[in-house]
Amino acid sequence: MVTIKDIAKRLGVAPSTVSKSLNNADDISDETKHLVFETALEMGYKIKRNKNNIGLAERRVCILIDNMEYENHDQFGYDLILGFKNAATSRNWQVDIIPANLNAFYELSNNYDAFMIQNKYSGAFMIGFSMHNDYLQQIRRTRIPTVLFDNHITENPKVGYVATDCYEGIGMAVKYLKNLGHKKIAFLNGTKNTMISDERINAFQQIMNELSLTVYDELMENGYYVPNCAKYHIPAFLRNGATAIVCASDLIASDVINEVTRLGYTVPDDISVIGFDDLPFSANLTPPLTTIKQDRLSLGKSALILLDGLINDIPISKMLLHAKLIERTSSAHVKTNL
Amino acid sequence: MVTIKDIAKRLGVAPSTVSKSLNNADDISDETKHLVFETALEMGYKIKRNKNNIGLAERRVCILIDNMEYENHDQFGYDLILGFKNAATSRNWQVDIIPANLNAFYELSNNYDAFMIQNKYSGAFMIGFSMHNDYLQQIRRTRIPTVLFDNHITENPKVGYVATDCYEGIGMAVKYLKNLGHKKIAFLNGTKNTMISDERINAFQQIMNELSLTVYDELMENGYYVPNCAKYHIPAFLRNGATAIVCASDLIASDVINEVTRLGYTVPDDISVIGFDDLPFSANLTPPLTTIKQDRLSLGKSALILLDGLINDIPISKMLLHAKLIERTSSAHVKTNL
Repeated sequence: MVTIKDIAKRLGVAPSTVSKSLNNADDISDETKHLVFETALEMGYKIKRNKNNIGLAERRVCILIDNMEYENHDQFGYDLILGFKNAATSRNWQVDIIPANLNAFYELSNNYDAFMIQNKYSGAFMIGFSMHNDYLQQIRRTRIPTVLFDNHITENPKVGYVATDCYEGIGMAVKYLKNLGHKKIAFLNGTKNTMISDERINAFQQIMNELSLTVYDELMENGYYVPNCAKYHIPAFLRNGATAIVCASDLIASDVINEVTRLGYTVPDDISVIGFDDLPFSANLTPPLTTIKQDRLSLGKSALILLDGLINDIPISKMLLHAKLIERTSSAHVKTNL
Repeated sequence: MVTIKDIAKRLGVAPSTVSKSLNNADDISDETKHLVFETALEMGYKIKRNKNNIGLAERRVCILIDNMEYENHDQFGYDLILGFKNAATSRNWQVDIIPANLNAFYELSNNYDAFMIQNKYSGAFMIGFSMHNDYLQQIRRTRIPTVLFDNHITENPKVGYVATDCYEGIGMAVKYLKNLGHKKIAFLNGTKNTMISDERINAFQQIMNELSLTVYDELMENGYYVPNCAKYHIPAFLRNGATAIVCASDLIASDVINEVTRLGYTVPDDISVIGFDDLPFSANLTPPLTTIKQDRLSLGKSALILLDGLINDIPISKMLLHAKLIERTSSAHVKTNL
């Protein structure tokens, strides 16, 4: 068991300097604090307040958020954060929300663990970060309990991830389309080379195979989660005979419906469109969108349950939620050629 | 919302008969109880005591156990059940353990939901059941929160499963063997056509591909989780040039070590052997077994956390725990031909 004395000895400073640094005291320079944190982490020093016996006032966790909108009910992050906070409150955890563009977040950005310890957070829920983000790279070796959303890092027992089971969700969508007579089904994915896009396209291909439906390379594209991506792919999908398009998000699906309509086709008479997420606006599209629901409140709650588990040394790696197919009218029986 | 009156009306009986049946009263015949339960379930009647507001005395869940030994510390089920019970106690759940060979378990075996409701269980943790078991088939359509171990049923929001992340575990083992210079790695799996065996062999093949190692069909076999399975496969593995064998359980690995020794070879000098589980006896084998640890206490705790989530309407589908490679001396650098 590494003690404050061990750290002091290694650094050749007084134990009080180490103690004060770890408590973020005002009379210690930032340079010294950095050095103490780095050394403490390197030596495997265990922060005592990460334990169950910490006082309620110190039961603090945070949500680190980047690239995701969450300020109003229509946005993906809103219910995610609400679910996390609700579950946290019932377990006496205090939650701070830290947008990644805040200075506070970057002041120690070269050391995630130090940032968490100095701010007395027992753990974090990180949402919206891309795999290339420097912070996310640090998560590979963190000793701070951390839950990722839609991003997976293996082989670190202090890191887990929460997501909707996309195999189940895409499976439900493709089975449903097959039952409606569709055979040439296209998939318009999100940003290329992200973990979640890779999982979704793999799921799509595996399920198509399991259902004995042919997978066409020209009917699988990446939409990059940007507005107006549909115009680059929909003409080719239609030309190649797709009768249904499964999209990686409701935003993409909304754009697809617009593009299909602009090209003079009708949803669902000419082509069925299915989204992913079930955001509030999706029920109000024309036509209302059939979509694979992500239960965002439950995802948030699960993230807190997972984080609470990691803090209590239960090495949870993945927690996947059931998907649900919400049938509306953007999908219909395949058009028969009379 | 379906009420007791609705059920009574449908059946043409008095509401008191329905109420008494649902409470398993002595003065109602078994036949009537069956009929009431079947009808209540069919109509989607929601049992009120599944909610948070039930009294402590009624917070009951059960562990249904089949084909798994759990009576002493050396057996797989022991810590699994202990972890579940520990987590249950801290959340005020009372736990009953029901071996599948008990009459009590079969008295309503044609209806799992009825069994659970009549016995006032809010949920169950089912371990050791095979997919062909009649009960497990009923789980596909149950409305009772149910957690499975090493068995997965999709598309039922009331059913989740808990397991060790075998992709991570087998990945750690294969990477470790590759670093020791091994190229011809064999995999001796458990019983054929079970979900867990399918997942493990898929994981093995995927990881071998990712690490640019050749997968040989003749180096992958099923050992059926029976004692003395090694003799059927080890001679061929050795003949085909395997330098390492990853096994689907410590029991199989133990048998493999015996068989390799019997054939005049030495572990690890001639061939490395890696197990899966890290049961207590594995450290005492000759040589002590390198193995992929399943943290059984944490698996049990996670099962309760998952079940508690399902009871509170959080539709958790999967909860996977981090694996850990325990390096002992049944594995070593590949033998170099001088």
